[in-house]
Amino acid sequence: MLGNFSYKNATKLYFGDDSLKYLNDELPKYGKNVVLIYGGGSIKKNGVYDAVISILKANGKNVVEDAGVMPNPTADKLREGVKIAKAHNADLLLAVGGGSCCDYAKAVSVSVNTDEDPWEKYFVKFDEPTCEIVPVGCILTMAGTGSEMNGGSVITNHDTHQKIGHVFGEEVMPKFSILNPKFTFSLPKRQMVAGIYDVFNHICEQYFSGTDDNVSDYLAEALMKSVIKNSLVAIDDPENYEARSNIMWAATWALNTLISRGKTTDWMVHMLGQAAGGYTDATHGMTLSAVSLPYYRHILPYGLSKFRRFAVEVWGVAENGKTDTEIAEEGLAEMEKWMRKIGVALTLSELGATKDMIEGIADATIILDGGYKTLNRDEVVRILSESL
Amino acid sequence: MLGNFSYKNATKLYFGDDSLKYLNDELPKYGKNVVLIYGGGSIKKNGVYDAVISILKANGKNVVEDAGVMPNPTADKLREGVKIAKAHNADLLLAVGGGSCCDYAKAVSVSVNTDEDPWEKYFVKFDEPTCEIVPVGCILTMAGTGSEMNGGSVITNHDTHQKIGHVFGEEVMPKFSILNPKFTFSLPKRQMVAGIYDVFNHICEQYFSGTDDNVSDYLAEALMKSVIKNSLVAIDDPENYEARSNIMWAATWALNTLISRGKTTDWMVHMLGQAAGGYTDATHGMTLSAVSLPYYRHILPYGLSKFRRFAVEVWGVAENGKTDTEIAEEGLAEMEKWMRKIGVALTLSELGATKDMIEGIADATIILDGGYKTLNRDEVVRILSESL
Repeated sequence: MLGNFSYKNATKLYFGDDSLKYLNDELPKYGKNVVLIYGGGSIKKNGVYDAVISILKANGKNVVEDAGVMPNPTADKLREGVKIAKAHNADLLLAVGGGSCCDYAKAVSVSVNTDEDPWEKYFVKFDEPTCEIVPVGCILTMAGTGSEMNGGSVITNHDTHQKIGHVFGEEVMPKFSILNPKFTFSLPKRQMVAGIYDVFNHICEQYFSGTDDNVSDYLAEALMKSVIKNSLVAIDDPENYEARSNIMWAATWALNTLISRGKTTDWMVHMLGQAAGGYTDATHGMTLSAVSLPYYRHILPYGLSKFRRFAVEVWGVAENGKTDTEIAEEGLAEMEKWMRKIGVALTLSELGATKDMIEGIADATIILDGGYKTLNRDEVVRILSESL
Repeated sequence: MLGNFSYKNATKLYFGDDSLKYLNDELPKYGKNVVLIYGGGSIKKNGVYDAVISILKANGKNVVEDAGVMPNPTADKLREGVKIAKAHNADLLLAVGGGSCCDYAKAVSVSVNTDEDPWEKYFVKFDEPTCEIVPVGCILTMAGTGSEMNGGSVITNHDTHQKIGHVFGEEVMPKFSILNPKFTFSLPKRQMVAGIYDVFNHICEQYFSGTDDNVSDYLAEALMKSVIKNSLVAIDDPENYEARSNIMWAATWALNTLISRGKTTDWMVHMLGQAAGGYTDATHGMTLSAVSLPYYRHILPYGLSKFRRFAVEVWGVAENGKTDTEIAEEGLAEMEKWMRKIGVALTLSELGATKDMIEGIADATIILDGGYKTLNRDEVVRILSESL
């Protein structure tokens, strides 16, 4: 049954191969001082940096740069970003990059106008922002996290081996996001497929809960089918606009709160993957793929009817003459075949995790309920060991 | 291929059997003067009126009523509503009812602060509002039009036999909408199924265009499958909360612009149905159902691959040993069976249309392109004649 809920998502999206020009429509809405946030500099190679700078200049903005946002943005970097934004009296934080840059910009946005330590406040104590929030805009160069249309932010603390996400409310969501599928063309294949698996897993995390049959489940299946189909095109033909645009659009809707409405969710693949990420600093999507199959095979008996449905509706598994469990397991086998085909990590060992890290990763795994099985610590250890 | 587009929909939704209480959260955001808009008084029978009035009073609002909004709100009623809202210096227009009340409230909202005639300005000349727009909130008692989360407004002019819709931009969308599936329980069955068909047709109108395979098409299929399944539950068990809640939520997403992103659309079933509505004043959803099958059978050859996909994905038609056309036609035959089962009108005659009206309805039919076949007038006449 659809549980009670509220929904609001006011991010303005500009989508398409001409979408950057709409930055000209958005900039006049904000003050003069812009912090331009980006990562390792790939945007300087593909021309996006120059194009953005030229629009910022044409709009008379006073720009400072906050570069070097890492794939897993750290608490230290966040503190540095807050200082930069404060010193610049930022009127707008403009993130140009993938989900890491967007996540980071949102974390800065809620921290500029408070004197508390942002890591402690938002990622340890899970406080909600009470201070003024600096507006965030995003120019996306990678499809995956959905950060361009949600309030989520994941920050990593290397000192404590913690990678923790805070899902903020609607007021923290980006004011606008610019999605040009062509900006994702130059992404290395490994990053592309990590993003694709991240999208797929976001949908799974919200799909695998409940025994009812509500609109959200149908929408989740729709998004999964589109992602699977287009991923197989994109791995052979990364500049296929149709495939990359559909992946980009599905990514946004995979994690903008729509498909979780009325459902409970436990996000355990992310909890396991993020804990592993805190130890290995591996690419986010790859940590998720590495733990997914052992986790799903473990919870399959507790959510049998949904795993059966997943097999039939998403993977086209034939039902005749098979038990429910056989059908459900065949679905996961098909999913594994697809994961191998697109080339995501299937073990944590590939990502640098070792046996001696298992206990530490298990300690760092936040166990949530709302899914088919609330894990105990022994189960976490077993799933992580099977993921090695 | 996904065409370029923008997307923003900032309506805050409260969904569930406790959702009315959130009116208390919304009212303080607006000034004292509220115009309470409703229809024929059914809300006085089912308790919704009393509940709303009590919340308005508890929040110290100064309320005037604008009642009697008809199922097809008229230009005359719109002019009256503008006068009421002007005289009351309205700070908020609160529509309590179905799509008609929401549509009407939006039409009033863009007309209060202009001296031009609202029918002429928005439904003849299709001007966009340049004046200040009075905020609109909706409390929904019928699932169907999606008006609770879009900028659409359909107004009927009896003098000229015209029923015309204007899709306004994001600034005209309701600021908030309250969706309590239980408020739809007391709706007469005929109204319920008219609403359900309206939802289904909204999805079809956006689905039947293009030969590509984009996310929107998968999402459309998801919504259709959910609506079909739950409609069959609801016709036998109208107080089945699960069915009514899923229908209500699907209705919102069927027409809040999401599933048309990146696509062209011609909305020809609505153009034909609304033209018939201008002559018969019949229930909106029923005018759509009456013209749908003749129209879809007519355009099937021009959009064969999509009608084939519709048959297989939405209606589960088996493909083996059949031509594409046979599969596609079987899909429409299945759709017809479902329409008969839920009990929607299958002819315009049932709705009071007669042969001598055909030429007039054809004249009133706005022919749009963007679908599989841009109709000519002869085709419109033929489809309307086949719909009699």
